[in-house]
Formats: sequence, structure tokens, C-alpha cells
Amino acid sequence: MSREAEGVKVSELARVVGGHVAGDGEVVIRRVADLESATEGAVAFVEDTKVISLALKSKASCLIVPEGEAIAGKSCIEARQPKLAFALVAEVLHPPKRKESFVDLTAVVRESANVHASAFVGAHAHIGLRSEIKAEAQIHHNVFIGDDVSIGRRCVIHPNVTIYDGVRLGERVILHAGVVIGADGFGYVRDVTGAYHKFPQVGTVEIGDDVEIGANTCIDRAALGLTRIGRGTKIDNLVQIGHNVLIGECVVIAAQTGISGSTVIEDDCVIGGQVGMGDHARVERGAIVGSKAGILPGKIVRAGQVMWGVPVRPLDEYKRLNAHFGRLPQMHKELQELRRRVAELTAQVGGSNEKDS
Amino acid sequence: MSREAEGVKVSELARVVGGHVAGDGEVVIRRVADLESATEGAVAFVEDTKVISLALKSKASCLIVPEGEAIAGKSCIEARQPKLAFALVAEVLHPPKRKESFVDLTAVVRESANVHASAFVGAHAHIGLRSEIKAEAQIHHNVFIGDDVSIGRRCVIHPNVTIYDGVRLGERVILHAGVVIGADGFGYVRDVTGAYHKFPQVGTVEIGDDVEIGANTCIDRAALGLTRIGRGTKIDNLVQIGHNVLIGECVVIAAQTGISGSTVIEDDCVIGGQVGMGDHARVERGAIVGSKAGILPGKIVRAGQVMWGVPVRPLDEYKRLNAHFGRLPQMHKELQELRRRVAELTAQVGGSNEKDS
Amino acid sequence: MSREAEGVKVSELARVVGGHVAGDGEVVIRRVADLESATEGAVAFVEDTKVISLALKSKASCLIVPEGEAIAGKSCIEARQPKLAFALVAEVLHPPKRKESFVDLTAVVRESANVHASAFVGAHAHIGLRSEIKAEAQIHHNVFIGDDVSIGRRCVIHPNVTIYDGVRLGERVILHAGVVIGADGFGYVRDVTGAYHKFPQVGTVEIGDDVEIGANTCIDRAALGLTRIGRGTKIDNLVQIGHNVLIGECVVIAAQTGISGSTVIEDDCVIGGQVGMGDHARVERGAIVGSKAGILPGKIVRAGQVMWGVPVRPLDEYKRLNAHFGRLPQMHKELQELRRRVAELTAQVGGSNEKDS
Repeated sequence: MSREAEGVKVSELARVVGGHVAGDGEVVIRRVADLESATEGAVAFVEDTKVISLALKSKASCLIVPEGEAIAGKSCIEARQPKLAFALVAEVLHPPKRKESFVDLTAVVRESANVHASAFVGAHAHIGLRSEIKAEAQIHHNVFIGDDVSIGRRCVIHPNVTIYDGVRLGERVILHAGVVIGADGFGYVRDVTGAYHKFPQVGTVEIGDDVEIGANTCIDRAALGLTRIGRGTKIDNLVQIGHNVLIGECVVIAAQTGISGSTVIEDDCVIGGQVGMGDHARVERGAIVGSKAGILPGKIVRAGQVMWGVPVRPLDEYKRLNAHFGRLPQMHKELQELRRRVAELTAQVGGSNEKDS
Repeated sequence: MSREAEGVKVSELARVVGGHVAGDGEVVIRRVADLESATEGAVAFVEDTKVISLALKSKASCLIVPEGEAIAGKSCIEARQPKLAFALVAEVLHPPKRKESFVDLTAVVRESANVHASAFVGAHAHIGLRSEIKAEAQIHHNVFIGDDVSIGRRCVIHPNVTIYDGVRLGERVILHAGVVIGADGFGYVRDVTGAYHKFPQVGTVEIGDDVEIGANTCIDRAALGLTRIGRGTKIDNLVQIGHNVLIGECVVIAAQTGISGSTVIEDDCVIGGQVGMGDHARVERGAIVGSKAGILPGKIVRAGQVMWGVPVRPLDEYKRLNAHFGRLPQMHKELQELRRRVAELTAQVGGSNEKDS
Repeated sequence: MSREAEGVKVSELARVVGGHVAGDGEVVIRRVADLESATEGAVAFVEDTKVISLALKSKASCLIVPEGEAIAGKSCIEARQPKLAFALVAEVLHPPKRKESFVDLTAVVRESANVHASAFVGAHAHIGLRSEIKAEAQIHHNVFIGDDVSIGRRCVIHPNVTIYDGVRLGERVILHAGVVIGADGFGYVRDVTGAYHKFPQVGTVEIGDDVEIGANTCIDRAALGLTRIGRGTKIDNLVQIGHNVLIGECVVIAAQTGISGSTVIEDDCVIGGQVGMGDHARVERGAIVGSKAGILPGKIVRAGQVMWGVPVRPLDEYKRLNAHFGRLPQMHKELQELRRRVAELTAQVGGSNEKDS
């Protein structure tokens, strides 16, 4: 049952997030909200003392504030990272709705499939041959799971997801609606008649623990071997991950980005939206790639670099070049002016030369 | 029943579109077509007298033409906006196919759901707890509708759409196949160990009357509060709308555009395809953003501006800069030539100086 | 039954691909692999003698090598195009899994539909009125097929695909999960009140033989007439094809590319990922368009051209301009230096002029 109905005391929330109470710890909190729209029973957060005037006006019953920034007369929780504390409080107040253990009568579960007794399988879902659905996993309405698939503990697979044969998911993976995992990679070989033949797409996909993948995102199976998404990585909606791509741990990839075959993204990288990466590129640990950037095939982005543009350049250089780009008309004028001056000088000098002669 | 079979007289079509008949009003029309492919029984339109030779050759039984441009010997409808009149005529001749009121036996409708007797619910669809499907709504095959959802009158929800809990649709909304409404927004907070925690995504999505949304487009729920799509707005395929985005009325957004969290697009804007907008940007009323443009986070595009490029600039400036960009090699040559001339001058002047001294 | 279990002799594989055996032709092969991960029973290929050291270390039981490049002591197949031969061998060893002829009891097949006795129709699939599913076609779980659709022989339609009314597919077409074929094109006409009216979208989509279309790709129906994808064309994931687009034969289109209404792409073109094409453009036979390129409405790319950039330019010019772009700061410095020199010269010459007067 949700904690929203009954509510949780500020003192208990403070304990959960490792913060401490300033003011009344007995106040009962039922939901999270932002400062502006908060009403009685809500907790909001103040990440930055710049919004302090907003905080003073807020109707929230409790504020999570930076350490030492408690507001007199308000029930506050002081925390080192108020936004993080707010996220943890939300997990307590609004735990993700979980369906009861149950296999819907309209679901099709193949006999050789192994669905844990604590799992949920929704209406019109399909679980293929020899596939395993582990404890407390939630397979929602109309999910298609092929043969020989493994779905780890406490995974949540939202409606209309398709998981092809042989794909393996770790624990607590969340796939949003419309995600497709394990479709064939895009590889063909042309023969002398001009016809394209499918390059074998007989590898698979492995997704680590605590990965979340946004709606309608596609992750292709490997041609040979493995496409891999590392533990704790978060991928937004409508992203394309090609065959044999290897993505490390705790990588963040924003919406509509596309990553071509065999490219490697190491741990802790942050990739903006609508980025395109050619095949066989490598983005090393902790690098940041700005939205709409383009990375050429085979390119290496070094660890920790911040890269923007098409093709990518270090952010400083990108900004400098863009500034120059914006001054091109002025540069053009200056160049014309110089040509005029030089022509004048030539005439003058030529004239004086004549006099001299 | 479709009007295609029986046909409609030109005079009746003229009345519907507020145009007037020139020529024979008794001709029976059964379908719309373009000028080239039209055959007997078809109506086509002439928006522009430039295509008059095409119009003269057309086998269409009726032409919709600009006022005062009727063609002698042809059955014509004169209209102020011929293309608009053509669209209205098409609504008469080819009304969208509507399913009879019916709940398919294979659909799963939760007991607390409220499906109007005049609605249609297709095979393998799912209607969640307390959700309301209003009069004459069409919920097609295999649509998933979660709990506490509201679907307005005469909505059409095409197959394989997913609507998460709590989403509200106005009247006559059309969602094409594969659309996902209300998946979690993309927001995380990192802790000291480097792990990402989900920022709460507990808001919802509200979609106004007469909105149409293209195939496989995703509209995320708000973190807190509301993601909103205003009345009469039209969104193309594969578009990404982030959490807490607010889109006004009669906005048009072309395919594969992505709009990051909390960005605002006011009424009557036109947004091209593959545009990317950073978070917390604002595009004011009636602005136009060209295809592939990039809008930085926090950027404001003023009302009525026409903006192109990455990052966006006013169209005139964009064109000017692109022209200069294309002349860079020439500019480079001119610069080299000037350096040569200046070196010569320096030598000459240095020479004459010597003579002067 | 898969040939993986029983295996195939090298001599038989050589015969299939038109290569010839060098070394032991009796070796039994069970699967394809790459050079590094190959183990006993696997066949790998060597496209290029640059990887010969990798080939020498490989544990593959058979190598497919260029003609005249057999490795002593290894079982080899010499072939003119080793990668192509490898693809053909993979078709033998790993034929696509085909379901037995069967209509799942949970599928909904309308009475007037015509499903061939040798076809497969999966769980919760839907086949609409008068639709035809031809011999050996595979309609997977939860596919929605509307009315008056035609699915050719040996087509494979993966789960959660949506095919709207009237669409026609040739033979051996593969549609990956989440594909949407035949949704309404994106066309509206605005009236004087500012409201948008749907332009009629009453055409259809026709897809030729041997086309493969990637996951979550959308192909819109024509407004009037036809959207057409030619024989042998391959389209990647998350691609958008607008209404009335005409794509020729053996075209390759990478992921997340978008093609606007009425644009034409002729035979044998190669289109990169995240490309955007405006409406009414034309890409002529055999042209290549680089990733992330932008093609303006109405633009013509000539046969065989290689084009990059936004807006597209010939690749050579694109590279030259990018090089100049990267040197803008240097150009700026040179210009400043020239201005200083010219000012000095002016002073000198002016001085000498004064002396002259």
C-alpha cells in the first residue's frame, strides 16, 4: 500500500535520508511537490539559497534545505544534497505501484517458461519457451518476451515492450512502453548483382542491474557476440543503440541519440540528446558529449573531455569557433576595407615611386 | 456508411465548403484525387493558377478553384481557400472509418472502468481501474490504458498505443499507433557513490481537444505537476516531449523533434523536423523554428521570430552566415593575396623611406 | 530444424558459396563467429590480409579467406568476397527461426480474411477484414493488421507491429517490432480562425519484395496516391518516411533518418543516420548522403554524388569548408595583424607624402 494515504512524519523522513530535523519533526507528510504548487501535507526542496524567497512563500508543510539553511518557523530537513534527499523521500511517499503476484488468464506462458510465483504477468503478455521471469518481476500488459530470455528480480517491463529471443536482463531493470530489445542489427553485404544479403545477427543483448530505458528506444542484438548496457545506466526515449555497442556503468544518454555498431561508451559518460555516433568510436570514461553532437566513425573521445558540435570538438574550441562564425560578416567587411586601403596605398606608393623616378 | 459509394453532388459539396458552383452542379462526386491521377467521379483542387495547364488536362469531374478562376466547360467550385475547401470536401467523401459501439470479448476492461455505451474497445485492449472512456471514443486493438485515465468524446486511439496511469485526453484527440503517453520523465539525482536515483516522476499529462499525435511519439509525464499539449496542436511521428513541457494551442511540430524538460512553446508556433530544444527554453507565440535547429537550454525565442541553425539565429542572419561560410575558401585566398601585397608594399615603402632619408 | 545441431561439412559450405576448399573439407562446422571469439566448430572470415595475425591465432575450425590467401594447416574456404560468403554460410548454419503453420487460438482473424494454410499467426494478433496472408508468412504475437491488407509470401512481421488498412507488402518482407506502416501523413490546412483541418490522407503504402524495416520505424500512407518502398531496400530503426515518399530499389537508410513528404530517393542510394530531408527533394540514383546531413525542400542531389553537411554540399567541399572553419581563429589573427601593418604603412606613406608635398 502507498504511504501517501497514511503519511510519514518529518522525523522519519529525515532518518531515511540521513538528514536532521530543524523545527517540528511530528508534522505528517503525504506527498512531494515543488515549492510553488505545494500545499499542506507536501514536502518540497530548496537546492539553492537563490530560491529562498520562493521557499518563504511556499505552502509546503516541510522543506528539505541545505545544511545550516533551515528556515525559522518552518518544519525543515537539513541535508547535504537536498535534491537527492527529496528523491529518496519520494521513493518512500510514492513507491512505484507494484502489481500483486498473478499471471493474467489472457497471458500466454509457454510450458517450458519459468515464471516465479512472486512475479506479475499482465493481460495478453507472452512468455516464450524456456524463458525465466525471476522473483517479483512485473511483466505488464501485452509485453512480448521471446524464447530463452532471462528477466531478473524486480524488473518492471511496461506495456507493449518487445524482447527478442535470448536477451538477458539483470535485476531492477525498467523498460518503458514500446521498447524493443534484441531486434537484428543493421548489417548487409552486397553481392555482384547489387542485392543486399543480411550479415548474420546471431549475437544477443545483455542489460545490467538498475538500468532504465525510455519509451520506444531500440537496442539491437549483436551480429556476433554481445551488445551490452552496463549497470546503473539510464537511457531516455527514442534512442537507437546499434549492434555490438558496449555501454559502461552509470552512463546517461538523453533522448533521440543514435549510436552506431561496435561503438564503446565507458563508465560515467553523459551523452546529450540527438547525438549521433559513427561505428567503432570510443567515448572514454567520464566524457560529456553535448546535444546534437556528431562523432565520426572510429573517433576517440578522451576520458573526461567535454565535446560539442559536428564533428565534435572540445567545448572551449567549439564556443570560440562559433563566436568567430557569428563574426564572419564583420570579418568580411574588414577584409574588403583592407583591400581598399591596400589598393590606395599601392596607388600612393606607386605615385611616390613615379615622383622618385 | 461512407459517402464514397453513393457519391455527393457538386452543388452539395459547394454548400458544405461555402463556395459556389460554376458549371454543372448536378455532377456526382465520389472521391478526392490530385489533378494528375484524377479520374471520373473525382474532385481535385487548383490552389494556384500556375498549375492551370495541369487543371485543363485533368480528368477530374470537378475542380475546386480560387474565386473567379472557374474553367469554362468544367464543373467547378469557386472557393476562397481551394486547398481548405478540398480538405473539407474530403471529410464529407472519406469520413474516418468508425467502428460500431462494441467491446471486443478479448478486451480486458476492469470493473471500475467506465466505458460509454457508444464507445468501441478493440481486441486485446486493456482499460484500467477507474478509467473513463467517453461517448463514441474508439479504442483500437491492443491499446493499453492504465488506471485513472480519462479519454474524451470521439477520441481515436490507434493500435498498440500505451497510456500510463492518470493521463487525461480531451475530445476528438487522435493518437496514432505506438504512441506512448505518460512514461516517466528522464530525471535522476546522483549520490556520492555515483549511483543515479530517480527524481520523482509523479505528475501527469493533459492533452487538449482536437490534438493529433503521430506514430511512435512519446510524451512524458511531469516530474511534479503537468505536461500539457494545448487544443488543436498537431504533432508528427517519433517526436519526444519531455516532462513538464507546456505546449500551447494550434502548434505544429514535425517529425523526430525533441523537446527537453520544462520548455514552453506558446500558441501558433511552427516547429520543423529534427529540431532539438534544451530544457527551460521558451518559444513565444507564433514563432517558427526551422528543421534541424538547436535551441539551447533557457533560450527565449521571441514572438513571431523565424529561427534556424544550431544554435538558432534569426533566419536572415542564418542565411547570411551560411553564405559567408560557403565563401571561406575565397576569403582565405583574398587574405593570402593581401598579405603578399602588404609585404610588397612594406618592401617598397621601406625602399622609398631609404631613398627619402 | 536448425543446421546448428548437426553441423555442415566445410566442403558443402564451400559449394554453397561458390568458393573452393583449401585444406580439410571434411571438418564439421556448426556456427559462425568472429576471429577472436571463435571456438571449435565455428567458421570465421578474413576480409583483409591486414588481420592475418588475428586469423593465425583464431581457434575457428574453418576460415573463409580471399582467393589465393589460404592459410597452410587450416581448413579454409577461398572466396571472391569472403564477407559475403560468410553471410551466405550463416544463412545455412543459422536459418531464421520459422514458426510452424498455425493460427494461435488467441489471435483474432476476421472471417473475410484469407490466411494461407502454411502461414503462422501468433498469440493476440489481429487480421482485419478481407486481408490476405500469403504462404509461409509469419505474423508474430500481437501484430495488428487492419482491413484490406496484403502480406506476401514468406514475410516475417515481428511482434507489436501495426499495419493500417490497405497496405500492401511484397514477398519476404521483414518488419521488426514496433514498426508502423500506413499511419496518416502529416498534412493540415489552416482556416481563417487558425484551426488546422486534416488534409485528406486517403492514399496507401506499397512495400516491395525483400525489404527489411527496423524496429519502431514509421512509414506514412500517401495523402493521395502511394508511398512506395522499392524491392531490396533496407531501412534501419526509428526512421521516419513521410507521405508520398518514393524510395527506389536497393536503397540503404540508417537509423533515425527522416524523409519529408513527396521526396524521391532513387535506386542504390545510401543514406546515413539522422539525415533530414525536406519535402519534394530528389536524391538521384546511387547518391550517398552522409550522417546528420540536411537536405532542403526541393533540392536535387545528382546521381552518384556524395553529399554531407547542413545544408548538403559535395563531400570535398564540405571537408574543405570544415578545415577553413577550424582555422577561423587563425584567420582572425592574420586579419588583425594585417590591419596593424596597413595602419603602419599608411602612417609611413602619409609621412612620406607630407615630405613630398
